[in-house]
Amino acid sequence: MRMVDIIASKRNGNELTDEEISFFVNGYTKGEIPDYQVSALMMAIYFRGMNERETLTLTNVMADSGDKLDLSAINGIKVDKHSTGGVGDKTSIALTPIVAACGVPIAKMSGRGLGHTGGTIDKLESFNGFNVSIPTETFIRNVNNIGISLMGQTADLAPADKKLYALRDVTATVENMSLIASSIMSKKLAAGADAIVLDVKTGSGAFMKTLEDSKALAEEMVTIGKGAGRKMVAVISDMDQPLGRKVGNALEVIEAIDTLRGKGPDDFTLLVRTLASYMIMLGEKASSEEEALKMIDDVIESGKALDKLAEFVKAQGGDPSQVYDTSLLKVSDKKKVITAEKSGYISRIVCDSVGVSCMMLGGGRASKEDVIDLSVGIELLKKVGSQVNAGDEIAYVYYNDEKNLDAALQKLKGSYEYSDKAPEPQKLIKEVIR
Amino acid sequence: MRMVDIIASKRNGNELTDEEISFFVNGYTKGEIPDYQVSALMMAIYFRGMNERETLTLTNVMADSGDKLDLSAINGIKVDKHSTGGVGDKTSIALTPIVAACGVPIAKMSGRGLGHTGGTIDKLESFNGFNVSIPTETFIRNVNNIGISLMGQTADLAPADKKLYALRDVTATVENMSLIASSIMSKKLAAGADAIVLDVKTGSGAFMKTLEDSKALAEEMVTIGKGAGRKMVAVISDMDQPLGRKVGNALEVIEAIDTLRGKGPDDFTLLVRTLASYMIMLGEKASSEEEALKMIDDVIESGKALDKLAEFVKAQGGDPSQVYDTSLLKVSDKKKVITAEKSGYISRIVCDSVGVSCMMLGGGRASKEDVIDLSVGIELLKKVGSQVNAGDEIAYVYYNDEKNLDAALQKLKGSYEYSDKAPEPQKLIKEVIR
Repeated sequence: MRMVDIIASKRNGNELTDEEISFFVNGYTKGEIPDYQVSALMMAIYFRGMNERETLTLTNVMADSGDKLDLSAINGIKVDKHSTGGVGDKTSIALTPIVAACGVPIAKMSGRGLGHTGGTIDKLESFNGFNVSIPTETFIRNVNNIGISLMGQTADLAPADKKLYALRDVTATVENMSLIASSIMSKKLAAGADAIVLDVKTGSGAFMKTLEDSKALAEEMVTIGKGAGRKMVAVISDMDQPLGRKVGNALEVIEAIDTLRGKGPDDFTLLVRTLASYMIMLGEKASSEEEALKMIDDVIESGKALDKLAEFVKAQGGDPSQVYDTSLLKVSDKKKVITAEKSGYISRIVCDSVGVSCMMLGGGRASKEDVIDLSVGIELLKKVGSQVNAGDEIAYVYYNDEKNLDAALQKLKGSYEYSDKAPEPQKLIKEVIR
Repeated sequence: MRMVDIIASKRNGNELTDEEISFFVNGYTKGEIPDYQVSALMMAIYFRGMNERETLTLTNVMADSGDKLDLSAINGIKVDKHSTGGVGDKTSIALTPIVAACGVPIAKMSGRGLGHTGGTIDKLESFNGFNVSIPTETFIRNVNNIGISLMGQTADLAPADKKLYALRDVTATVENMSLIASSIMSKKLAAGADAIVLDVKTGSGAFMKTLEDSKALAEEMVTIGKGAGRKMVAVISDMDQPLGRKVGNALEVIEAIDTLRGKGPDDFTLLVRTLASYMIMLGEKASSEEEALKMIDDVIESGKALDKLAEFVKAQGGDPSQVYDTSLLKVSDKKKVITAEKSGYISRIVCDSVGVSCMMLGGGRASKEDVIDLSVGIELLKKVGSQVNAGDEIAYVYYNDEKNLDAALQKLKGSYEYSDKAPEPQKLIKEVIR
């Protein structure tokens, strides 16, 4: 088998065989096939696409390329969740304790990543002492004992995907649905859960800008997951404005805790309840959406969901008193107020600008080495559809360093757009694919 | 300027600017842009194509990437010739002395290359002592003194093309008309001639298998050449069966000499006369095809063309007596006869099989290090359209080494196909583009 023939075959519009896909993925991972042949193949795939079988094979081969998490020692159906990411997305922090409190075991591996804020791990480090560097045995024991645990990505999951993604990033071959779907799903399959709920974001602040593309990606991932024997649901949710009211690390933890208390913002609460209901159903702890939602309401009202977060934080070395008293979570006391520039309705809040503003404050990483300031961030007092008068307070900015403050304030101010009449309300949950 | 943006731009179907083309070609040649980005761009160009301006810019930038031959010290209009290659193509050896004898200066740089037989240089080394490693000053002085000289490709002409072609070869991105045309033309432009006659082969033994593709390539190259200020003609000629009757190195020199004596095979003679007439017209030594053909016939009949070859061989250290007595050119005296397998008409002679047969005998190079046996080869006694009886002699094989002899004989035998009725005669000259 020669790589140049595989490239030519895809270039000519043929299907690649399973053997050809294994050959190039494994050869590339081992360093036996050079970058320049793989990038040419990726561009050919960009133009010619891959069918269902090819995409599933690519995903499986990448999932098998490194370590795989063995969750068989955990009792029950393990349900994982993945979000394609956006601004203000603190969903996991509220969602997983709710689901765990409803009896579905949560064994989650998470990363730090780059972006507007830190990843879930960074956010959870807002709890003093919280530690994700735990051995796999502790991780599995915690899940069996308290129903929930989270570890940093120490294992070498899907190294083929890591190498391929880095190459695609610099060769303009990211934007292909099969390649995007297989990249996400290879890591999820290697992480070992029996069922996966996907939160596929759509809108200006999402990787997929249009509902059509988001739907196509969701369908592709659901098909892959089912093909690999996993139970799958994908929820397509709005990311045309930031999710919830708080953007930042400690700020987002506070908002997640508020939501566990039943006092979260409407949009975020709806998303958490929706995703949780599917996780509970896939985990076979409820047989209908109504039943699942009732269970969710119960664990919130009874305080069991909040207690589960406290247990989880404590089991990983964190301070559970901060769960019950969020004033103990460190948010900077230096605050600036943003006011409305004109009277009317807020017609738009440009997601990316809010995210970049938070990053400028020091709340996110541009490169792996950057240190995050967990205490800074943005609080959106008014969201799309709110009626305001010029001069009304619309947002708070929590900062420490004055260096980029003016630029961050300008960026945030510029993210608001106004109109004379009320904008059409947008649904948060666009579609559910299963 | 970032390479990833250039790739994305072409991928999205945009035209590349002249600056973008210079950036990637020069960056790649200097080693500042990695292979994997260039191969992805080549694949994007494969799918999106390049327009006339982009193709001309690419050609010019590649032509400017290394040394350029300065022929300004040569008097008159310098006319070069290029063939896209095929089996039995000894055209330059007969063509250039004729054109030089008609007063058009021939200053040709030539390579060895890989293939079924050696390149023009290898063939000319059938003359004892013939030397192409001459300094540029000798080369130019010879052209001014006797009207013709040939040197090996010592200068670093179009290194960008060399590097790009090697990459395209292993990434399945060769087959794009703009890239093929710019690759050929960049070397021709760097070789410094004022006018270029292209012999674009078409058919099963050519790089371009269909007349449509050959025409498209010819048109693209003529457009580039004119865009770069050169006078251009492209002749599209048949390569569906080997050209002439002899395939090999010394054998082809003999056939070229026979043609200079007016005793060459019809197809080869026609091609040489046609190409020569356009070279003479571009060199402004004749103002019509009739006039040019008359001049050609004159130099052949008078012996001036043959004398010119002898002068040329002598000026480069070779033995001119071999020009006048071809029995002094070494052809192996070990000969095998191939006979017709059935009675009827010869309907096809598969070009590539004849070529591979010659290579098996040792007449060509598979890799750069291979040593060629100049004395071996094939003589085709019968060509397409000949009526034969089973058992008639149809070809001779001249060999030295018995190692691959049986395989070579089988290959040659298998290249002949037969039919009951006479095949449709094919025109040798398909079209002329100017």
